[in-house]
Amino acid sequence: MFTHKTQIRIHYALTDQMGVVYHGNYAQLYEIGRTEALRSLGITYKSVEELGVIMPVVEIHTRFLRPAKYDDLITVITTVKEIPEHSKIIFYGEIFNEKQDLLNTGTVSLLYMNSKTMKRCDMPNAIKEKVKGIFDVNN
Amino acid sequence: MFTHKTQIRIHYALTDQMGVVYHGNYAQLYEIGRTEALRSLGITYKSVEELGVIMPVVEIHTRFLRPAKYDDLITVITTVKEIPEHSKIIFYGEIFNEKQDLLNTGTVSLLYMNSKTMKRCDMPNAIKEKVKGIFDVNN
Amino acid sequence: MFTHKTQIRIHYALTDQMGVVYHGNYAQLYEIGRTEALRSLGITYKSVEELGVIMPVVEIHTRFLRPAKYDDLITVITTVKEIPEHSKIIFYGEIFNEKQDLLNTGTVSLLYMNSKTMKRCDMPNAIKEKVKGIFDVNN
Amino acid sequence: MFTHKTQIRIHYALTDQMGVVYHGNYAQLYEIGRTEALRSLGITYKSVEELGVIMPVVEIHTRFLRPAKYDDLITVITTVKEIPEHSKIIFYGEIFNEKQDLLNTGTVSLLYMNSKTMKRCDMPNAIKEKVKGIFDVNN
Repeated sequence: MFTHKTQIRIHYALTDQMGVVYHGNYAQLYEIGRTEALRSLGITYKSVEELGVIMPVVEIHTRFLRPAKYDDLITVITTVKEIPEHSKIIFYGEIFNEKQDLLNTGTVSLLYMNSKTMKRCDMPNAIKEKVKGIFDVNN
Repeated sequence: MFTHKTQIRIHYALTDQMGVVYHGNYAQLYEIGRTEALRSLGITYKSVEELGVIMPVVEIHTRFLRPAKYDDLITVITTVKEIPEHSKIIFYGEIFNEKQDLLNTGTVSLLYMNSKTMKRCDMPNAIKEKVKGIFDVNN
Repeated sequence: MFTHKTQIRIHYALTDQMGVVYHGNYAQLYEIGRTEALRSLGITYKSVEELGVIMPVVEIHTRFLRPAKYDDLITVITTVKEIPEHSKIIFYGEIFNEKQDLLNTGTVSLLYMNSKTMKRCDMPNAIKEKVKGIFDVNN
Repeated sequence: MFTHKTQIRIHYALTDQMGVVYHGNYAQLYEIGRTEALRSLGITYKSVEELGVIMPVVEIHTRFLRPAKYDDLITVITTVKEIPEHSKIIFYGEIFNEKQDLLNTGTVSLLYMNSKTMKRCDMPNAIKEKVKGIFDVNN
């Protein structure tokens, strides 16, 4: 299991007239958490795309427990429980505010796809190398 | 059961560098579908807020089957299966492209809340009146 | 001179906690106005990209006179005063609400660029053909 | 004169299918730069709103020189040249990438407004106090 924390300051553009973060904008917060989690392992999503692999989101399940608000310094906790043998990877996300209230949970599933053929593919070896020490990855 | 169809043209702002609609932007498409479904019943969400009631989203579950693309004229089909006796309402959404491919499904749950007390409340009577003919609503 | 009107309903995602459309979102409204103006001439921006030409925005000047609000059915008036001989085209936009209040003005300049070389290019002939009747275009 | 630098990582949501940051999203980058510039002076925009003052944007002028791209770590330089005696304040922004290329310039003018009366007002005294040492502010 791998867990990573990222802090994000909520800016005005993310709010709506309910005075809270617009529900559709949480996907962005989880995206940032996920990307920074990968970066902490030495993997940039940019470099994944440069390898000819894209990672489209195929499923999101989000629960909105308490609203994130303007200027909140939220913490996104991103967890990967297992590296699958094949093409799908699941990120479990939780968002907390500065008072440690759990605001939101989001489970995001992505596929590894070849950007030319647009077919599913395995996790690139360059990534397997990076995560070998953390997960028990079959090479 | 109540079903409504809305068409939306995908503009550039909704796309990302994968050449498709950014996954976080589907929430906006379902929001538009939901609002237009209510409008077709003679209910504007704006008027709901003017009654002192807000409808925050509490859960979203989205499956991304095929990507929506720039300039696609998509159809959002919004379905309400039942009007609950209490404060939670669920909208089932499906998005199709012009070729009738099913692109995306999204289940969005919202609460009726009193905007002053921020407590859950029942569906406002003004709305119950409008939907009486469609659903079997307890007044 | 060419002028076109498009109507857009303001949805919740476009608002911010000031209770009005977030200033950064007007660019989207002008984008939609511009695209629909082109479509009314038989030109889709999608087809322009398929010709290997992109039209990046190089300058925007926006004045915010009165706020657009949630559920407003705004009218975007898009005007092209002249078709330039070379690579730059300017769209003049105005946004009105249903009471005919002028809310916003936006001048957006775009370039025609070859998407492979990323160099400026002339307006594609396919577009010149379409606008010949409206503007005095040099072929 | 007062100048402040903020770094922002470009995430996927900000890009469009041209493979660059969507032109409408630069307003968000300048917003973050402006807010962090104020924070460095001990002023949060959140606290300004809590004083009953809002700062709507009344004009933006943006030039797009080179595109910001996904995963770029951009620097937003925010400059205030003078604190006006009355209700309008202008922020001059510049965005650079990691190679120190100037990507974008944006001049953003905002008003101080009383959020109840929705009339222009002077800069709140609480802010004047904070900036006294930097600018020659008339109290």
